[in-house]
Amino acid sequence: MLVFLKDNGYQIPSYCGGKGSCGKCKIKVISGIKEPDKQEKLLLDKTEIKKGVRLACKQKIEDDLIIDIPYLEQMSILTEGNNFKENLNPVLKKVQISASPGDLNNYRGYLNYFYEKLSVNDITFKALKKLNKINSKKEKNIFNVIYDQQKNRIIDICCVQHKKQPPRPFFGLAVDLGTTTIVLYLHNLTNGELIGTFSLQNPQEKYGADVISRIKHTIEQPAGTKELQELLISSLNQSIDEITGVHNIKKKDIYMVSMVGNTALLHFLLGMETESIANSPYIPKFTDSFKISPDIIGLDINKSGFITVLDSISGYIGADITADMLAVNMDQKNNKNELLIDIGTNGEIVLKNDSQITACSTAAGPAFEGANILYGMAGIPGAISSFMLDDTGKRIYKTIGGQKVKGICGSGLLDITASLLEKKIITKQGKIREKKDISDQYQEYITEHKGHRAFIIKAEKEGTGNNKILYTQKDIHELQLAKGAIRAGINILLNKTGIKKNEIDRIYLAGGFGNYLNPKNACKIGLLPEVQENKVIQIGNAAGSGARKHLLNQKSQKRLKNIKKNVKYIELSTTTEFQNEFMKTIQF
Amino acid sequence: MLVFLKDNGYQIPSYCGGKGSCGKCKIKVISGIKEPDKQEKLLLDKTEIKKGVRLACKQKIEDDLIIDIPYLEQMSILTEGNNFKENLNPVLKKVQISASPGDLNNYRGYLNYFYEKLSVNDITFKALKKLNKINSKKEKNIFNVIYDQQKNRIIDICCVQHKKQPPRPFFGLAVDLGTTTIVLYLHNLTNGELIGTFSLQNPQEKYGADVISRIKHTIEQPAGTKELQELLISSLNQSIDEITGVHNIKKKDIYMVSMVGNTALLHFLLGMETESIANSPYIPKFTDSFKISPDIIGLDINKSGFITVLDSISGYIGADITADMLAVNMDQKNNKNELLIDIGTNGEIVLKNDSQITACSTAAGPAFEGANILYGMAGIPGAISSFMLDDTGKRIYKTIGGQKVKGICGSGLLDITASLLEKKIITKQGKIREKKDISDQYQEYITEHKGHRAFIIKAEKEGTGNNKILYTQKDIHELQLAKGAIRAGINILLNKTGIKKNEIDRIYLAGGFGNYLNPKNACKIGLLPEVQENKVIQIGNAAGSGARKHLLNQKSQKRLKNIKKNVKYIELSTTTEFQNEFMKTIQF
Repeated sequence: MLVFLKDNGYQIPSYCGGKGSCGKCKIKVISGIKEPDKQEKLLLDKTEIKKGVRLACKQKIEDDLIIDIPYLEQMSILTEGNNFKENLNPVLKKVQISASPGDLNNYRGYLNYFYEKLSVNDITFKALKKLNKINSKKEKNIFNVIYDQQKNRIIDICCVQHKKQPPRPFFGLAVDLGTTTIVLYLHNLTNGELIGTFSLQNPQEKYGADVISRIKHTIEQPAGTKELQELLISSLNQSIDEITGVHNIKKKDIYMVSMVGNTALLHFLLGMETESIANSPYIPKFTDSFKISPDIIGLDINKSGFITVLDSISGYIGADITADMLAVNMDQKNNKNELLIDIGTNGEIVLKNDSQITACSTAAGPAFEGANILYGMAGIPGAISSFMLDDTGKRIYKTIGGQKVKGICGSGLLDITASLLEKKIITKQGKIREKKDISDQYQEYITEHKGHRAFIIKAEKEGTGNNKILYTQKDIHELQLAKGAIRAGINILLNKTGIKKNEIDRIYLAGGFGNYLNPKNACKIGLLPEVQENKVIQIGNAAGSGARKHLLNQKSQKRLKNIKKNVKYIELSTTTEFQNEFMKTIQF
Repeated sequence: MLVFLKDNGYQIPSYCGGKGSCGKCKIKVISGIKEPDKQEKLLLDKTEIKKGVRLACKQKIEDDLIIDIPYLEQMSILTEGNNFKENLNPVLKKVQISASPGDLNNYRGYLNYFYEKLSVNDITFKALKKLNKINSKKEKNIFNVIYDQQKNRIIDICCVQHKKQPPRPFFGLAVDLGTTTIVLYLHNLTNGELIGTFSLQNPQEKYGADVISRIKHTIEQPAGTKELQELLISSLNQSIDEITGVHNIKKKDIYMVSMVGNTALLHFLLGMETESIANSPYIPKFTDSFKISPDIIGLDINKSGFITVLDSISGYIGADITADMLAVNMDQKNNKNELLIDIGTNGEIVLKNDSQITACSTAAGPAFEGANILYGMAGIPGAISSFMLDDTGKRIYKTIGGQKVKGICGSGLLDITASLLEKKIITKQGKIREKKDISDQYQEYITEHKGHRAFIIKAEKEGTGNNKILYTQKDIHELQLAKGAIRAGINILLNKTGIKKNEIDRIYLAGGFGNYLNPKNACKIGLLPEVQENKVIQIGNAAGSGARKHLLNQKSQKRLKNIKKNVKYIELSTTTEFQNEFMKTIQF
């Protein structure tokens, strides 16, 4: 049922890839209901089971079924990079050239005339063929020519039939391929303007929320790589349809795509095998940027245009992270020690000092995205996104969109944990104290869930709605593992470079979770080293910003190469140091 | 019938493209014969008509026919450039690289490892896909990598399954696309060796012996350009089959093709329209060199390889002539005034002094190739290729291959004309004198043909065979037009550059006719300016030599660009000077 729904465009959350272990793909079966199986009983409330709630991944479609999808919600995806600025100097240029027979009097032909006019020396065969359309008998031909300033190559020639008029603008797309979400930015390359953005969930989710599950799929299924590629391309093409439709732009006027994403996703995009990324020694097929024709993967833009896949660093530091680094100008020396953290399913951590850039990746797991947390959910309307516990015992929370509480998203979890720590409701080891060891005003919030303690965020009868929201002992441990992994990565980078915590000048937080979390609380629970609040800079979707910089300014390409050259990658899974550090950092 | 025969691989001479005007496509009809038509009566002897000889282009296949093709003969095509030498430094290099997991320990992946090993920074998508075949679990992988040293790009990767062994050699083809003949040179690019050559008649001949007839075909027939392209490609592919078969080489080991030819032929090869070359102001679509993938035109070499079409100058000075110039090092300053003449259907003339190179093209017509000459024929066995008339009146001639006389080829015509001039049998105006005005010993050779005088080269009863060979008044005029056009071109270049005849240091003669003619006689009849005999250098198929230089040494590319830059092209059809000069030079 889950695959069926996803194939039909319903974006149902599912972190385990349909294995029945995350309990997120809830649907309500109205007619044709069956008894819940073992896993459903474990993951669903009794009241839910009674109401007909089941897991979509567990329902086989054997007969007519009527279902409701009450949890379906359009995710709001962070698309904006904060304070985006870039000079307009794209690698492609569109110019108008008129040619009378008299101009061609050196007898060297049309192409040579274009070469001289544009100071280029190459042309694609597709563009050359356009010269066949020239009407040699006409007094004057007017051409719109698009050429690549770096390769000195003409890539398209359009013969203008009418009298001279300014050429139509041409466009480019910056694309951030995320494991969970994909964001497209459409820029006018004639004036640099951002025309619009479009975001969607990565359709590959049906083969697993994390990249490793998807790689496993390609190992198990001979056609798996092709399947994952086709899913990506077809949803990109649908997005291009959408974004060009909305803004009334022709698809054939899109000539450039700058593509970032994690290394495995870029491999999927190009149909490259990923098995070697998942297994030691974790060697990707490629990390270097290159251009391909849209024909090669069937992307629906002008066939004379091209797609650039940006530079990655390693199998686990992808082009999204080099784009992050570009977005915050990490290639520029500034005598500052800068830490960049991009938290998704993996946490990528980059530390820059004036001599080099060091990077690592830790498998934080999807706790910050709401997975493996009893009432965890993505950052969508209804999620508790911030939380406070005051001295009188009042619990104050905000939900996204001010809607009825449905669960807790990553930034909410962080706030709750920080509050419980501050009020000494949990220990430094992450244990919820016994009632008797807690201040009176908080004691009533302690309850039990499946034999372990839990903290009541909202009781059934409180506030709007009849649902209860708990934060359980198990949830706290999940959060500890996630934050511990990231902090261990940070500490190892600091150790390796000899930089002390108090020497950190800036911490950049990239991505959705990083953008919405409360930095103070992130420091309090030990996710981040304790630094002055103003040193933490939330940079939004910096991977998207980096891709846009690449699209708009050809100099970005060299800058990315420089960044790549200067990054030293540390594979944590092969350092014994990591386990030692992790044992320390899982504590608060 | 002519088209039918050509389609079936019979290489029948036909200069007019089947229009019934050249009289060269003779066949013998054995059964099913019809009365000759008007044109056949005009072009064929009475004895021929009686024997059943007809023109193939005039025979419609309406019923069973039995024919004989007595004139069919494999042409011997000049393939050798004289004194060919070139350093081996091809743009492609093939190397072997081994990679153990330990070598890849920087986690940047296989591609990055290759980039570092080879100092390159690009790869084709086709080659990238080959990385999918890497067995990451193997202790050591061994790869044969082919890369482009100019573009710094890997173009092919082969995973060697067995243990280390030297890579197989790889190969390249130099191709000279002539209007009449095509020559292929197969080189081993690992050691530079010339493996073999292969030559064939240009199958486009069925649409006309000259380029203009073929262009007319493309103007009249919507699919004409495609037809001409396909003819060329399919016969190139057959030739590749042949030459690789003979030398036991795999087609997929051919990675490079360097292609020269006149500008229109190069347009046909790529499917580009040629109408604008034929009509004023004679603007070709392109004259600049560029590379294409063999897939694009369907050439049967390794799909990862490429074809380079070399630089031309104008619509009438093609890449064959720039290749000629490369072959004689015209880009190198040597304080010499050098004239280069490549005589085919067109005569291309190049004059180099120390400041620049000037070039023009004259429509000499196909007289030197035997067309429009009563007993003219190509330079094949049986053709009179040299001739002398001694003071006693003895006529001494040599035929190619020492075979029975069949006709006269270009160099024979030249010798005959020079002899007749020397013995005052013809006047400076080209008129055959009356018997009474000629020395006694030659008077018996004067006869009449269709009301005009003619010179008997061989009477029916003389020598071997019962055929007679005449040199007619009309033939002499044809020759005058041809030599006059070329000489006028030479004179105009001399005038434009202010170089005097006696300041010419060298005359290079390129091509088959130029290679076999007697330079002394060429000066005597005024085809060439009178210079010392040792200043005339016959360079053979220099266009082929230039293409081979391009194939073997990447530096040639820049040299060709330099040549192109320095050539000043003069379009003779638009200079009034040409007509004036021509009026003078048609005289002897």
